Amino acid sequence: MNRRDLLKKGAVIGGAVVAAKVAGAGSKAFATQKKYRWRMVTSWPPGFPILQTGAERFAKRVGELTQGRLTIQVYAGGELVPPLGVFDAVSSGSVQCGHSASYYWAGKCNAAQWFTSIPFGMDAQGMNAWFYYGNGLKLWEEVYKQFNLVPRPAGNTSIQMGGWFNKKINSMADFKGLKMRIPGLGGKVLGKAGAAITLLPAGEIYTSLERGVIDATEWVGPCHDIRMGFYKVAKYYYYPGWHEPGSTLELIINKKAYESLPSDLKAAIDTAAAELNSKMLSEFEKENAKALTGLLKDKKIKLLRFPDEVLKGLKKLSYETIQDVASKDKLSRKVNDDFQAFKKKLSDWNKISEKVYYDFMI
Amino acid sequence: MNRRDLLKKGAVIGGAVVAAKVAGAGSKAFATQKKYRWRMVTSWPPGFPILQTGAERFAKRVGELTQGRLTIQVYAGGELVPPLGVFDAVSSGSVQCGHSASYYWAGKCNAAQWFTSIPFGMDAQGMNAWFYYGNGLKLWEEVYKQFNLVPRPAGNTSIQMGGWFNKKINSMADFKGLKMRIPGLGGKVLGKAGAAITLLPAGEIYTSLERGVIDATEWVGPCHDIRMGFYKVAKYYYYPGWHEPGSTLELIINKKAYESLPSDLKAAIDTAAAELNSKMLSEFEKENAKALTGLLKDKKIKLLRFPDEVLKGLKKLSYETIQDVASKDKLSRKVNDDFQAFKKKLSDWNKISEKVYYDFMI
Repeated sequence: MNRRDLLKKGAVIGGAVVAAKVAGAGSKAFATQKKYRWRMVTSWPPGFPILQTGAERFAKRVGELTQGRLTIQVYAGGELVPPLGVFDAVSSGSVQCGHSASYYWAGKCNAAQWFTSIPFGMDAQGMNAWFYYGNGLKLWEEVYKQFNLVPRPAGNTSIQMGGWFNKKINSMADFKGLKMRIPGLGGKVLGKAGAAITLLPAGEIYTSLERGVIDATEWVGPCHDIRMGFYKVAKYYYYPGWHEPGSTLELIINKKAYESLPSDLKAAIDTAAAELNSKMLSEFEKENAKALTGLLKDKKIKLLRFPDEVLKGLKKLSYETIQDVASKDKLSRKVNDDFQAFKKKLSDWNKISEKVYYDFMI
Repeated sequence: MNRRDLLKKGAVIGGAVVAAKVAGAGSKAFATQKKYRWRMVTSWPPGFPILQTGAERFAKRVGELTQGRLTIQVYAGGELVPPLGVFDAVSSGSVQCGHSASYYWAGKCNAAQWFTSIPFGMDAQGMNAWFYYGNGLKLWEEVYKQFNLVPRPAGNTSIQMGGWFNKKINSMADFKGLKMRIPGLGGKVLGKAGAAITLLPAGEIYTSLERGVIDATEWVGPCHDIRMGFYKVAKYYYYPGWHEPGSTLELIINKKAYESLPSDLKAAIDTAAAELNSKMLSEFEKENAKALTGLLKDKKIKLLRFPDEVLKGLKKLSYETIQDVASKDKLSRKVNDDFQAFKKKLSDWNKISEKVYYDFMI
């Protein structure tokens, strides 16, 4: 289906509401209570822990908050549209909302990448401060407006892992010729370092690692990585996830659908999204801590930290890469400038707050 | 007013609802829409940034979510009950809810202290993981049940500052004889170190510091400290706030009032509390970063870090103090055991995640 068809189709579905007059007379506020039946598509497999289950919890919460006046039926990736069809489906209005990650849309919208995570960017706490009390969310709305989308931060993976490796990384030179599966900006950075970057669908990573088609792969963090079984076919588990220090998930809503809602239903969506944004991070922290113990004690994995020299080298290349990518268009430059300025100011404070907590108090 | 009177009075006010029948026939869900008029008391001065304004934002959000079916009138500390009268007022039912901090109630309920912050405890991210996906909130509910209270995490100050000092702290010996205003467990720890701990009302701290009645005081973080003007009368601003690494604020609701609500209004309160819990932390991060810049650039304050030896010494004394305090009753022991076990597991993960972020990426 092309864009025009989707837009046409979307116009019908997006406007489908059930008018349920609940009172002829009485309080004006309740005089007409339209019911809204929405559909949400996600980029996650059915039942995928924390991400898909989080999207479903969000939908349930909206139903509770609105006494069923706004119900959201959630479809996992592939059930209604492909996992990476979420953006187009919501943009066109063929469904009303979606749960995904903005950096998947880099090809359509370069500036989108900053709203998930960028290499050596900010952690979850910093991203949220930028969204809610810096210009982060305002900029995101500005960027997505041209696609008829309203964005809301709706979850965070917390800082990810560096990935699973069958070759040791002792210096930047070790990236030369390394065959690694790593998408996005992280892949661009390692490409600059001389790695041979491949993109593989999730289902092919394990076998490719096992057969030596690739030397390394990144995935998410301990709790999702353990399910993929990579510990069986890779020698080393590296940290930190320098390329994704705190990836924000997104709720995207078709702008027309959002604007057609009465203010209490808009508030229900906004509040439930903020709740999901915070609680998903908590769930990741809890589950990652648990899975890491399992990986270390039961699976006896070998945990390694990228050496200082490597982290310094990656930081330098990341900075160059991000400058390149930001220079592609005016909006990306604007977003990057604001992001970096916010990060700088926050870092000055975090050097005497959170950093000391993690140095001395854990 | 004594406890019995409050309980009696509370029973009347707590049950005061306005039944607004909005439909004689039609949808059952909307057949009877009772209106609830609640009052909230807080421990904060009128207009107090982030804390009082946060409580007011929460009330506004609940009003929006419920189309005014549940409205909450917010009273600052002293307007209806004294700042530290919040617990009793909500417990008795004389008002339906309050915004405060659980460690203020240590005298009535020893176990309450763990739900705000304890010396060398967890930061905001860790506290939230414990509340939402560990046993934190379940334990808090168990502890507060005996006082007819339902608690919800509702804000976090982020890690606080060590305080304003007119004497340098180079070793643990420098705490001997130091006259410092520092309440709670932090005060107990410094008492063990030989400091002379005093408790002063907020309005008297500045003058006491100026006149040498005290040598030091802690307060909150840069954004609230700058308003108090301590930089004019103290030589050194110490970090980190080892005694409060991530203080959670509380929403407390009278249990009977909460249970009398239909499920959608309960959901409105819970969701809005989760939103406040997350966004208040973001606001603190943003405002602290800004105020710190102001203090350093405009006020030229001298920022000092407690030396390693001092932090190690404080950690040891904190551990002993908390063991003492936890041994007072069964419930406190149960809460402390769970808190420490959760922190231990989370720390193992955070050593390879957030710690490395703060070491290398800010």
